[in-house]
Amino acid sequence: MPFSQDTAHTLIATLREQLGDRHVLTAAEDIAPALVESRGLYRGTALAVVRPGSTEEVAATVRACSEAGVPIVAQGGNTGLVGGGVPYGGIVLSLARLDCVRSVSPGDAAITVEAGVILADVQAAADEVGMLFPLSYASEGSARIGGSLATNAGGTAVLAYGNARELVLGLEVVLADGRIWNGLKALRKNNAGYDLKHLFIGSEGTLGIITAAVLKLFPKPLSRSVGFVGLPSFRAAVELFQHMSRAADRDLTAFEVMPRFGLEIVLKHAPGSVRPLAGDHAVYALVELSSTRPNADTGEDLEGMLAAGIENGLVEDATIGTSEAQNAGLWALRENLSDVQKAEGGSIKHDVSVPLSRLADFLEQATAACEREMPGLRVCAFGHAGDGNIHFNLSQPVGMDKAAYLAEWGRFNRIVHDIVSEMDGSIAAEHGIGLIKRDELALYGDPVGLDLMRRVKAALDPHDLMNPGKIVALGDDAPAALPV
Amino acid sequence: MPFSQDTAHTLIATLREQLGDRHVLTAAEDIAPALVESRGLYRGTALAVVRPGSTEEVAATVRACSEAGVPIVAQGGNTGLVGGGVPYGGIVLSLARLDCVRSVSPGDAAITVEAGVILADVQAAADEVGMLFPLSYASEGSARIGGSLATNAGGTAVLAYGNARELVLGLEVVLADGRIWNGLKALRKNNAGYDLKHLFIGSEGTLGIITAAVLKLFPKPLSRSVGFVGLPSFRAAVELFQHMSRAADRDLTAFEVMPRFGLEIVLKHAPGSVRPLAGDHAVYALVELSSTRPNADTGEDLEGMLAAGIENGLVEDATIGTSEAQNAGLWALRENLSDVQKAEGGSIKHDVSVPLSRLADFLEQATAACEREMPGLRVCAFGHAGDGNIHFNLSQPVGMDKAAYLAEWGRFNRIVHDIVSEMDGSIAAEHGIGLIKRDELALYGDPVGLDLMRRVKAALDPHDLMNPGKIVALGDDAPAALPV
Repeated sequence: MPFSQDTAHTLIATLREQLGDRHVLTAAEDIAPALVESRGLYRGTALAVVRPGSTEEVAATVRACSEAGVPIVAQGGNTGLVGGGVPYGGIVLSLARLDCVRSVSPGDAAITVEAGVILADVQAAADEVGMLFPLSYASEGSARIGGSLATNAGGTAVLAYGNARELVLGLEVVLADGRIWNGLKALRKNNAGYDLKHLFIGSEGTLGIITAAVLKLFPKPLSRSVGFVGLPSFRAAVELFQHMSRAADRDLTAFEVMPRFGLEIVLKHAPGSVRPLAGDHAVYALVELSSTRPNADTGEDLEGMLAAGIENGLVEDATIGTSEAQNAGLWALRENLSDVQKAEGGSIKHDVSVPLSRLADFLEQATAACEREMPGLRVCAFGHAGDGNIHFNLSQPVGMDKAAYLAEWGRFNRIVHDIVSEMDGSIAAEHGIGLIKRDELALYGDPVGLDLMRRVKAALDPHDLMNPGKIVALGDDAPAALPV
Repeated sequence: MPFSQDTAHTLIATLREQLGDRHVLTAAEDIAPALVESRGLYRGTALAVVRPGSTEEVAATVRACSEAGVPIVAQGGNTGLVGGGVPYGGIVLSLARLDCVRSVSPGDAAITVEAGVILADVQAAADEVGMLFPLSYASEGSARIGGSLATNAGGTAVLAYGNARELVLGLEVVLADGRIWNGLKALRKNNAGYDLKHLFIGSEGTLGIITAAVLKLFPKPLSRSVGFVGLPSFRAAVELFQHMSRAADRDLTAFEVMPRFGLEIVLKHAPGSVRPLAGDHAVYALVELSSTRPNADTGEDLEGMLAAGIENGLVEDATIGTSEAQNAGLWALRENLSDVQKAEGGSIKHDVSVPLSRLADFLEQATAACEREMPGLRVCAFGHAGDGNIHFNLSQPVGMDKAAYLAEWGRFNRIVHDIVSEMDGSIAAEHGIGLIKRDELALYGDPVGLDLMRRVKAALDPHDLMNPGKIVALGDDAPAALPV
């Protein structure tokens, strides 16, 4: 800790005075949940968990910490997957009490929310006025929108609507010195100087703390059709995507893939799962067409596209949901895949992207390399194929010791990330860098780009108090990655 | 000039050696076109116009200037409208020779181009592979893509495809110290640290020089229908937009407005213009539906939407083009409006945006305030209503002295920008800040946001050599705005 015990005591007393005793938690059992990240890979330490109730209170908290020289980690739902929210001895600033939907304006197709609003509640507030907030991912029931934006979250709606970044019109941010930047504009066009919001989106709390945002809303689809497709290979899946994206353009709202192994473990471990197709296929795709046009027939369109796929040999078999319940059942096969991997033992994970034209090559090369490295290892490569983003996960060989397997994490990172890098891809497609990939970024990132990041960090947070040691380490005193 | 004559001589000699004599222009007649901006509002000075032929030569040029302490202004087509490309005694770095389309990849829906490629040539290269690069604006025949990105250009396709910023996947940038940042990735998802490309897009050459970019391509629309609509008021136009954008969603690819005065001066001054509707209407809208779906009937859709508009009293009259020639004729009525204003004498211009829900209020209030300020003044408020972006231009009273009228520019800026600011709008929606709005930005910008911009500028360009004095002035020695 770079600050003294006295400093810590004085800071806690100041914060208690500013926020009230019950919003400054210091008891071990109260702060425990904030110290561990969602996969249990890291455990940190903290002086306190502080729960300000307004933007002004966030600003006062940050100012007090800044004056004391004590680092701050912002947390929303603490659902991140890269250790970005793990604290190292400073203050955890919870945004949970900033949970107000400030306004919904259908006329501007915009909603203004505070950082602590749960993602599903943003979706619900949009739905209430007959509109759509498309951002959607597995943890949406507990993830808070401030974290979604701070990590530029992806998910299943990126194909048609973009990443979290693309859904933001304006931001309110508390800076490292406790000042408030008010960039809460509901404008579709604004070239009044540098676009500061893009600095903070995806910066994982290292440049400032997002306290509120103006988000885009969209017309709600009036119809959707979901298909589950059996394919001979990932290469066929990518080719089917190319055909469908040309024919359906923005009506193609999802194109997700999984291997046979993925479907089998969902059917085995997720209660209520129903086998969607009679035969077995090497690869499966979940595809969705949606339309906001009253006269659209997404079912007919989808049938036509899949029939064409069968004709030109890409598709082996396919089914289309005939009710919303069936559609939900097909989606569940994809959504449950994240969870059921746990039941198969240790899983070494990669969240990578490559240019779409290299995706099939990547999957073939990386699969072969990993299987060669450890016979019996089971590749579970699945996810957002339409975005070129694959969760290239590796389930352990049956019967191997889990801890011994997970100790090989670094070795497989090197194999997979080398191939990604050679294909001009990204080693951090949608989950971010945080702690878990900081050293990987230092290894694979463009050195000039890394230097730019450090300069930006130093310019906005000169004392390195905002989530220090995440994304880029500024000095030698940056905390090392601390596994549990 | 903050550098000596000797320094200048040595620098020119170095550049001649690096690039060859014929690419370092110093004769007054050779450099004259680079000193004036496109509306003739400012005239600058320069030591030389330098024409590097590759990214490496751009880097060498910047390094030489950096070492000599001589400022650099990057220029593409020099078509900017805010004086952002006007030099003040340093070097003009022309990107015109970096005019190579490096690659087109339909499989990645991406094209990689150098900064000097003319926008229309990017469109043509996309068209050659059956795809669409949607960015489109009046000067596309001479504007170069590096400038489009450096200014985050808007134009007529923003409604469906976004600003220039939204069309960028990756960038290559020469930094202030001459290093090259290679961020030329063709990825749809990349959360590997701060998103540096968004720093440079829209920074008007003040943070670095964009030398190449990977841009998104889209499926080409298979059909389009264009309508020209007569309306009783701007308020009715905004309401029609709301109805149409809900019904057509992303098929609505344009919604432009102009007042009766605008249509009349186009019909008067633009040869070949044909009056689109028999009667007179207070406001006109040009609307376009496009679709990439083979079975779409945009004509029927548009007819239905305009019929509904007539039924609920928003639309007074409308026509729909029945051939591509007719569509082009209707578009020409809108496109020629920028140009024909010149024929009506002096024009005081504002490029503003407000939230869509305030657009009608803005137009009513600003029109009334300006007409009150100077009876006889003719408001020509037109543009991208669907984006909330209006070119709120004011043609002089008939018979008034043009220079005397233009001397009132600042007075009308104050009136219009006060109303924009009160409505949480932007005083620089799509043309940028440059020189012409730098002092307005200092006046209306959030002070914390302005401080952030200065910090970013100082971090990336510590010696203030990249297009100094544009967007934000760093020191007291920043060049003042110098009208011709």
